[in-house]
Amino acid sequence: MINFRVVAFILGVLLILEGAFMFLAAPVSILYGDNDALYIFLSSFFTAFAGFLLWATFRKCNKNVGKREGYIIVSIGWVLFSLFGSIPFVITGTIPSYTDAFFETISGFTTTGASILNDIESLSHGLLFWRSMTQWLGGMGIIVLSLVILPILGIGGMQLFIAEVPGPTPDKLHPRIKETAKRLWGVYFIITMGEVILLLLGGMSLFDAVCHSFTTLATGGYSTKQAGIAFYSSPYIHYVITFFMIVAGINFALSYFALHLKFRSIWKNEEFRAFLSFIGLFTLLVTLILIFTNQGQSIEKSFRDALFQVVSVITTTGYATADYMRWMPSAIVLLLVLMFFGGSSGSTGGSIKIVRVVLLLKNGLLELKRLIHPNAIVPVRLNREAVKPEIITNVLAFISVYILITVIGVIVVAFMGYDLSTSIGAVAATLGNIGPGIGDVGPAFNYAHFNDFGKWFLSFLMLIGRLELFTVLVLFTPTFWKK
Amino acid sequence: MINFRVVAFILGVLLILEGAFMFLAAPVSILYGDNDALYIFLSSFFTAFAGFLLWATFRKCNKNVGKREGYIIVSIGWVLFSLFGSIPFVITGTIPSYTDAFFETISGFTTTGASILNDIESLSHGLLFWRSMTQWLGGMGIIVLSLVILPILGIGGMQLFIAEVPGPTPDKLHPRIKETAKRLWGVYFIITMGEVILLLLGGMSLFDAVCHSFTTLATGGYSTKQAGIAFYSSPYIHYVITFFMIVAGINFALSYFALHLKFRSIWKNEEFRAFLSFIGLFTLLVTLILIFTNQGQSIEKSFRDALFQVVSVITTTGYATADYMRWMPSAIVLLLVLMFFGGSSGSTGGSIKIVRVVLLLKNGLLELKRLIHPNAIVPVRLNREAVKPEIITNVLAFISVYILITVIGVIVVAFMGYDLSTSIGAVAATLGNIGPGIGDVGPAFNYAHFNDFGKWFLSFLMLIGRLELFTVLVLFTPTFWKK
Repeated sequence: MINFRVVAFILGVLLILEGAFMFLAAPVSILYGDNDALYIFLSSFFTAFAGFLLWATFRKCNKNVGKREGYIIVSIGWVLFSLFGSIPFVITGTIPSYTDAFFETISGFTTTGASILNDIESLSHGLLFWRSMTQWLGGMGIIVLSLVILPILGIGGMQLFIAEVPGPTPDKLHPRIKETAKRLWGVYFIITMGEVILLLLGGMSLFDAVCHSFTTLATGGYSTKQAGIAFYSSPYIHYVITFFMIVAGINFALSYFALHLKFRSIWKNEEFRAFLSFIGLFTLLVTLILIFTNQGQSIEKSFRDALFQVVSVITTTGYATADYMRWMPSAIVLLLVLMFFGGSSGSTGGSIKIVRVVLLLKNGLLELKRLIHPNAIVPVRLNREAVKPEIITNVLAFISVYILITVIGVIVVAFMGYDLSTSIGAVAATLGNIGPGIGDVGPAFNYAHFNDFGKWFLSFLMLIGRLELFTVLVLFTPTFWKK
Repeated sequence: MINFRVVAFILGVLLILEGAFMFLAAPVSILYGDNDALYIFLSSFFTAFAGFLLWATFRKCNKNVGKREGYIIVSIGWVLFSLFGSIPFVITGTIPSYTDAFFETISGFTTTGASILNDIESLSHGLLFWRSMTQWLGGMGIIVLSLVILPILGIGGMQLFIAEVPGPTPDKLHPRIKETAKRLWGVYFIITMGEVILLLLGGMSLFDAVCHSFTTLATGGYSTKQAGIAFYSSPYIHYVITFFMIVAGINFALSYFALHLKFRSIWKNEEFRAFLSFIGLFTLLVTLILIFTNQGQSIEKSFRDALFQVVSVITTTGYATADYMRWMPSAIVLLLVLMFFGGSSGSTGGSIKIVRVVLLLKNGLLELKRLIHPNAIVPVRLNREAVKPEIITNVLAFISVYILITVIGVIVVAFMGYDLSTSIGAVAATLGNIGPGIGDVGPAFNYAHFNDFGKWFLSFLMLIGRLELFTVLVLFTPTFWKK
């Protein structure tokens, strides 16, 4: 039997927390002289109160959380956060349609950054702060999910990394989750503060620095400016943000080691090296294309634009300093390919993830060796250790399902009348939690032109993409609910 | 040590055979009053003579053919056939550029059907006959390759079907290959004759009926008409060709059973059922799109167009009765997806193949079951039998490498300046041995606008796509050549 009571209890606790975080947006609104602080306060109170009701009703329940309860809490949790998180946008009248508000909010909590807003700067400071914070909170959730919870649930080859996570030895679920989460959040918080300070030094206002740091670390990509990062002409700001996007795309367990000056275990990590190599290779190619075609632009600017967009896409952040849809098709194709790479495992980046891409490539190459020596055992190696065949099957199954969902998604979007580029772009950018895609959802456009069905459909893609597919999909199998 | 002598010997025998088949085009040219019979005869003599020299030099060699020799013979064989097969086009002056002639010929032998000809009907009957025959011979080669040789080489999960192939029990390589090949070629020949007769009954000329039957059975798609099958307005001809495309997309071992009236073992075959189901599903969707958007057209015509194009693409034939680039984006996307399905294993169809798509889907679904019951052994089943995990890994590796090559191919084509649709279309249509793709290589266009590098690159994609990737790729690994 699934223990629904503990599910409700934990969701209640989470809602109380969401209410508390939402409350922080009210003083921001007051501070900047906006007139919606009361609405934000009401939304936060309502959210926390709903959480309190759940908590109070089920607080005496059996606190055993098994695997199945884990899947349900994670999936419903993200949806519930978005359902309540969209309230401030609606009751302030900023986003009149609930569908639009939900899209904008789940795009926040899934750290996607796909927007339906045609005039971002018309929002109050309080709402902009809350919009950025949805991403920062989503990022927090993802770090714990990918480094602590998913390895326990056994999803997507992430168990590979369980040994590397800082924290006490795994015995009981609760203390381990709590202790590890605390350490990782510490890292997340320190790095966020680091970015705030560096952006302030570059002349950005405190408000914008905090909001952009929130959405950088979450690889979310929401900006407080309609033009996004292109609003800032300072190369310093571009490079600072690029650096922190890269950091956010690295396994946070490695950042924990870095803060403890254990650099050797970072360099030993193959996923880390592959991540940097992919960035280097694609930046080189895109820079060459830009130098070759944009005669009027300095080489430094071409390199900076290429690096920024490559890092923004591979980490699934989705910021833009240039409208890459105006680049050569070859550059667009390179960025489209990167949309399927994603950040490292245990980072806030979405999409397929570097480690899976690496295992895919290695296994493909080894299959050739296996053909020549069919009786030899040729295991795939990662960080010098043999990877178990089950994990390879699991990783390949993940990628297959990812591509399958992409294909179905592209068909569905094309049925709404969109062309091939836009259909591929919209699906790659929402399923991969990137934000802007290509075609009519490129960096110069947004998702406002989708109809309601389209917005709910893409919201669903953001959700399953963010939760490593299987966490959500498993809920749709009859086996899950049996017995 | 690799036995290069027997490789050269067998390639010599194959060239003599190619010369003999090429010779058949000379009387056709005479019969229809063309003035190039002498050139065709000279080409065929030159080809056979080159083969004779190889045969004579190495005829006393050690006749042991191992796995490695097998890989080399197959890969080099297809290239050599194309190198010599393009001679008639060049020396008659019909295709002045050797690159163009090679592209047209390897597109024939790989049963792709991608053309660089801007005026097909200006070719002599002899050359049109030879052009169609390259596909028919390529189809013959593929049947033997996929049903007899690849299972022995252990490529791509085809060993799954080794038990089903009609022929003596496998003991020694030679008698088995010879005997099985004879039976399968018998089936191939009988079905080709069947199509010729039915097309004649529909009013097609003998010449066109033979040429179209050659290219239908090979799922090649070369037509003798510039407009392709759209030249014929008769619904009867459309349905006859559709029927034979479907037959050509079915495992020829099953057709062998059908001719021996063993229908039960056909229906038991899951790949066969999946193949028909995919055709049914996609035809339904495309028909609905056409009915919904083409108000002026009869429902029968919408159904016929949809069925024809769906069957043409899934079987990788590449014929067209309509320019689907003028259809809704949703219909184009559906056809693009089908380009990655391909025919059944053991058919002349190319691309990924139905059985692999089925195993991919099944394994993806089972991964969800494995998550809930991590300790249960949940094997993928095909035709009610458990499939070995190595085969699943092999199939998933094949699909990964297929997609990887597609991605690299799309990047390369985009670098030549083509847009996303055309890049995807050209790669999907050549690697999948389809012929016409989407965008600027759609059914109303051809491949003449590619530069020489592009034509050699796409030729290489046709080759590796046709030879199940690994057969060719393995030659590029250092391990292959060691010791």
